[in-house]
Amino acid sequence: MAGQSSIRVAVNGYGVIGKRVADAVTAQDDMELAGVADITADWRLRMAARKGYLLYASADEHTEAMREAGFDVAGTLSDLLGDVDVIVDCTPKKVAAKNVETYRQRGTNFILQGGEKHEVTGHSFVAESNYESAIGRDCTRVVSCNTTSTVRTLTALKRAGLLRRARGTLLRRATDPWESHLGGIMNTLAPEPEIPSHQGPDAKSVDPGLDVVTMAVKVPETLAHLHYWTVQLTREAVKAEVLDAFRASSRIALIELGDGLSAINVVKEMMADLGRPHENLYEVALWADMLKVEGDELFYAYMVDNQAIVIPETIDAIRALTGRERDAARSIAATNRSLGIGAVAEASGG
Amino acid sequence: MAGQSSIRVAVNGYGVIGKRVADAVTAQDDMELAGVADITADWRLRMAARKGYLLYASADEHTEAMREAGFDVAGTLSDLLGDVDVIVDCTPKKVAAKNVETYRQRGTNFILQGGEKHEVTGHSFVAESNYESAIGRDCTRVVSCNTTSTVRTLTALKRAGLLRRARGTLLRRATDPWESHLGGIMNTLAPEPEIPSHQGPDAKSVDPGLDVVTMAVKVPETLAHLHYWTVQLTREAVKAEVLDAFRASSRIALIELGDGLSAINVVKEMMADLGRPHENLYEVALWADMLKVEGDELFYAYMVDNQAIVIPETIDAIRALTGRERDAARSIAATNRSLGIGAVAEASGG
Amino acid sequence: MAGQSSIRVAVNGYGVIGKRVADAVTAQDDMELAGVADITADWRLRMAARKGYLLYASADEHTEAMREAGFDVAGTLSDLLGDVDVIVDCTPKKVAAKNVETYRQRGTNFILQGGEKHEVTGHSFVAESNYESAIGRDCTRVVSCNTTSTVRTLTALKRAGLLRRARGTLLRRATDPWESHLGGIMNTLAPEPEIPSHQGPDAKSVDPGLDVVTMAVKVPETLAHLHYWTVQLTREAVKAEVLDAFRASSRIALIELGDGLSAINVVKEMMADLGRPHENLYEVALWADMLKVEGDELFYAYMVDNQAIVIPETIDAIRALTGRERDAARSIAATNRSLGIGAVAEASGG
Amino acid sequence: MAGQSSIRVAVNGYGVIGKRVADAVTAQDDMELAGVADITADWRLRMAARKGYLLYASADEHTEAMREAGFDVAGTLSDLLGDVDVIVDCTPKKVAAKNVETYRQRGTNFILQGGEKHEVTGHSFVAESNYESAIGRDCTRVVSCNTTSTVRTLTALKRAGLLRRARGTLLRRATDPWESHLGGIMNTLAPEPEIPSHQGPDAKSVDPGLDVVTMAVKVPETLAHLHYWTVQLTREAVKAEVLDAFRASSRIALIELGDGLSAINVVKEMMADLGRPHENLYEVALWADMLKVEGDELFYAYMVDNQAIVIPETIDAIRALTGRERDAARSIAATNRSLGIGAVAEASGG
Repeated sequence: MAGQSSIRVAVNGYGVIGKRVADAVTAQDDMELAGVADITADWRLRMAARKGYLLYASADEHTEAMREAGFDVAGTLSDLLGDVDVIVDCTPKKVAAKNVETYRQRGTNFILQGGEKHEVTGHSFVAESNYESAIGRDCTRVVSCNTTSTVRTLTALKRAGLLRRARGTLLRRATDPWESHLGGIMNTLAPEPEIPSHQGPDAKSVDPGLDVVTMAVKVPETLAHLHYWTVQLTREAVKAEVLDAFRASSRIALIELGDGLSAINVVKEMMADLGRPHENLYEVALWADMLKVEGDELFYAYMVDNQAIVIPETIDAIRALTGRERDAARSIAATNRSLGIGAVAEASGG
Repeated sequence: MAGQSSIRVAVNGYGVIGKRVADAVTAQDDMELAGVADITADWRLRMAARKGYLLYASADEHTEAMREAGFDVAGTLSDLLGDVDVIVDCTPKKVAAKNVETYRQRGTNFILQGGEKHEVTGHSFVAESNYESAIGRDCTRVVSCNTTSTVRTLTALKRAGLLRRARGTLLRRATDPWESHLGGIMNTLAPEPEIPSHQGPDAKSVDPGLDVVTMAVKVPETLAHLHYWTVQLTREAVKAEVLDAFRASSRIALIELGDGLSAINVVKEMMADLGRPHENLYEVALWADMLKVEGDELFYAYMVDNQAIVIPETIDAIRALTGRERDAARSIAATNRSLGIGAVAEASGG
Repeated sequence: MAGQSSIRVAVNGYGVIGKRVADAVTAQDDMELAGVADITADWRLRMAARKGYLLYASADEHTEAMREAGFDVAGTLSDLLGDVDVIVDCTPKKVAAKNVETYRQRGTNFILQGGEKHEVTGHSFVAESNYESAIGRDCTRVVSCNTTSTVRTLTALKRAGLLRRARGTLLRRATDPWESHLGGIMNTLAPEPEIPSHQGPDAKSVDPGLDVVTMAVKVPETLAHLHYWTVQLTREAVKAEVLDAFRASSRIALIELGDGLSAINVVKEMMADLGRPHENLYEVALWADMLKVEGDELFYAYMVDNQAIVIPETIDAIRALTGRERDAARSIAATNRSLGIGAVAEASGG
Repeated sequence: MAGQSSIRVAVNGYGVIGKRVADAVTAQDDMELAGVADITADWRLRMAARKGYLLYASADEHTEAMREAGFDVAGTLSDLLGDVDVIVDCTPKKVAAKNVETYRQRGTNFILQGGEKHEVTGHSFVAESNYESAIGRDCTRVVSCNTTSTVRTLTALKRAGLLRRARGTLLRRATDPWESHLGGIMNTLAPEPEIPSHQGPDAKSVDPGLDVVTMAVKVPETLAHLHYWTVQLTREAVKAEVLDAFRASSRIALIELGDGLSAINVVKEMMADLGRPHENLYEVALWADMLKVEGDELFYAYMVDNQAIVIPETIDAIRALTGRERDAARSIAATNRSLGIGAVAEASGG
């Protein structure tokens, strides 16, 4: 990509996902963060200012409050849109749908997060599954954390010719750490009302060929999701084959309970020890020693950092939309390198 | 059973299970609580004294401390054993194994709880599955809360000719409410290291014909376990058939998320509203509206009150061992009546 | 009170407080529950129906939904008001304020809960402090759980001539168990923004002579509040005097950490063992062995069951408003007897 | 300090504190990490190896296991001791006491953490209070997180001539995040049995002139401690004076609830946003807008990151023991610069 100018990227919504996307964009050799747009004017925005990010008001009416709070506001979202190749929308659910009209009117390529419906963009993205189909599109949707992990792992099994059908139970963290003073659940478990839960069908928006059913339940912790799977294989198999299938994905990290990584809090601590910003776990962390193959059935569990797992996917999606990198493997490798993906597997002896 | 003298029952260990067993024995028309043995001398034992239960020291060396604390001690475990038809051992795991020798030497029929291994008694008990095979035995083991619920529900499907194989994910409460100041887990999820977890094989100690695999994970709440199941049926079925199969068990209560019973804390509140002692949920509380049948696959979830579910089983096991009631259905009906089992289903419109 | 007809009481709002008030009214010799009004039509209302309580719709528009759900609705709130001596309003905060207009138009005496402001009734009630001043009034406000416990304990010290000024730190449970799937806080502590927090000034609405300042913080548990106090005494004192002062209140129960009651979950378990409905702790449970006197300073901590502590106060307030019992001590004794208050102190050897 | 060789520092025990000390030592211009000693051979040690830290076995018997696990072990603790100016002991409570004998025999200067008793070293350290008295000593004890924060804040008030006496209620996090799968408390509050709790007297081991009493309670969260204080001032004061007194300490950061920093989880998120390793909050984070002065009484609350607050103190203690920096202010400034202390106050507009 030598000689080319950087891809100019904007981030709308500087929250849990937005700030991670902004940092990740900044870490790419071939990208440039044009600015971040938001509506807050408190400590959160000061964190963005401190990093030198250009600040924009997501809507005109917020400009004044931001300026009064002492922020140097470069303009509004509208100004920002005129100056970028892609905007990544990280605003809350219902807000994003409205923004889409603006992006379309301005002709700016955009990426939505998994809270939005597939229909809004007509394309749902997981790098290892369907990077190529996003090339040259004007928009895509990076699917949710749960769906991303499901597609990554089932794609790995599928490519090894092992996947017939998968049935999952998803334990969902109740809220994110930074909002855990505002809500959540306490000392209880709250099943999602519908079986199948939406994640199974959502995986099919990326790969319609998957036979997957999920059930989900909200659990009283804030760290990460945890998925348990029962998979019907296409044939009898041995454990080593399955582990090899997972190892073929650079975004699945095999870890071991027997190594002391025996609960999700320990894995988060490892991320801190690795020096990862925000203790981000970008990989699916799958317990290799716990995994079991019995005849043609496969059982396993993994951890999903709902705040971090979609970040590398978003970076790849930016490259795909702009068409600046037409090879999925090369984009994935570049993203992995910039974010240190691979360190977990390596540090786990995996 | 008119004209017969009452079955004399002793309880060894007045903890979470022991106190519930003592109360339940007292509630039976055909049983009499001979006394409870324990080693504590604090508020817990005062609660037993307050109910008029005769107090015994589980071991000689505790007698003095109990008397010094002001308790009227009727004797030691040895005295108690000479005077009863059955003793229910509710002591902690490793203690129970030692007690067995004593019970055997004294020739006292005994019942162990699910923390012990099947081999110790050679018989594992769930009333609706194998009551008859316990008749006339000198001992049995009431299986654990998780296994009891698994056997109850799979037996119901089996009797309806629907069960081929069952795969479950078990969310286990980390500790009991009254001990939650002493330990537990905080803001994390801790997978059980082995797949299959022990509950699946344990169900086969009651019914070797079951094809069942379980995975388990400890979750940070104290109220109850929650099980999610994927069942391969023997044939395509419709939802109504499955619900009828479950309804055929008096110890499975169908509840509805749509009725407001949308999380395990709400179901516990309902137990309090029903006036149940200790908010006991003796039934498997299975969400009927969430249950889904797709072709020959069945998906459902239910809640298990680990403190209460084995209480009716223990009462039935007492009757079976003594041979005073040779008909499972009649014992189950008597136990249900005495504990108000049926109220949940009734109050749920189920 | 022989020969008199019962006081007819209505309860508006069958939630955490309302259902406890309804049960407590039913337990009084001199009262009669005329009915309960609510707006729900799910399992919660079935619990009321199951107890034989007459059901009313809090507002006309709910009647039909309740009837469609199969409930036998006796009428609307308006019908109920015409038939009672007192109505106890247990509806959520903003709803209660509107109801007041209705009660006033109908000329029905009413009692509000502590979520409302003092100004609405002009009188705030804690039985041991100011029962007499409520006699013959048409309305009063039973103060909040936190304020009730503060007034009870400080009144005890004041009557012993020991109280100069009190400074408290209040740890507030984040939400109630039955609603803990709907909200709360997770793995955090959330200080109340204002010092002094509102509880201190609120205690003065009952007794303007109290010199009390409070600070408050929300903590991630659902069981009970916990208060820590530093009190400046009027003079040097010894521990025994202070304990005697607290013992003089029948609604303060002295408990001991050394007796095994070492955390709030254990005290709740004791309530279950005592057979209290909903594991209600009506008393302030104050740790006697932890309490410390150093010179003229006093330090102590106690537990407040926010769901239960105001129930006996509400019963006394009903008697005071109707003027049927003009002696505070006699009303308190009758209420205590009916609810088993005294059992905690007795069972604790206190 | 130009021209001088670096202070050679060893760390014994690579746990919560040890790893942070190792990182902080590495960040100093005038120090060098000679190595870390531990007994583990799992992922935790790989994290140290990954950073290039030399690894030693804390005891001979662990060497082999560590080598078998693939670690390059440089030697045993004994080898390490011969090569350093100071060893920082970060081993668990009872282990440290034994190590002291070894350090003394080898004549190695050592620093203990706050879990040990004052008597073991005869000196207890908080940089802003008594740096000078540690100069040239062969050992000291960096006091616990709770005591460090108490001494920092009360020293600030004392230097401003405002402190008469302080009474605190300490909410203690139940366990650390990385161990929260192994224990803790759940949905309860557990008072410390003794009033005064040990933290008050412990502050006097640093400054015997402090009049301080503390009460403590364990709360069900893992993030940080939270202290509430009622202080009797020497005279009537205004809020601005008190804030100035606190601002005079570089290790007290004034933050504002009104800025969105409204609970301890939010402050931790800010640390992540600041890019702090392990989201360390080295400062006492004190809410300025919540702080209240009423006449001669002062009320305030602050947050204490128990994993991080003692790290800068430990660095200063190293300098003091070696005598390489005899000026407290200069050591504190150097430590602050290296760890980015000051950023919180700055980012908070404080």
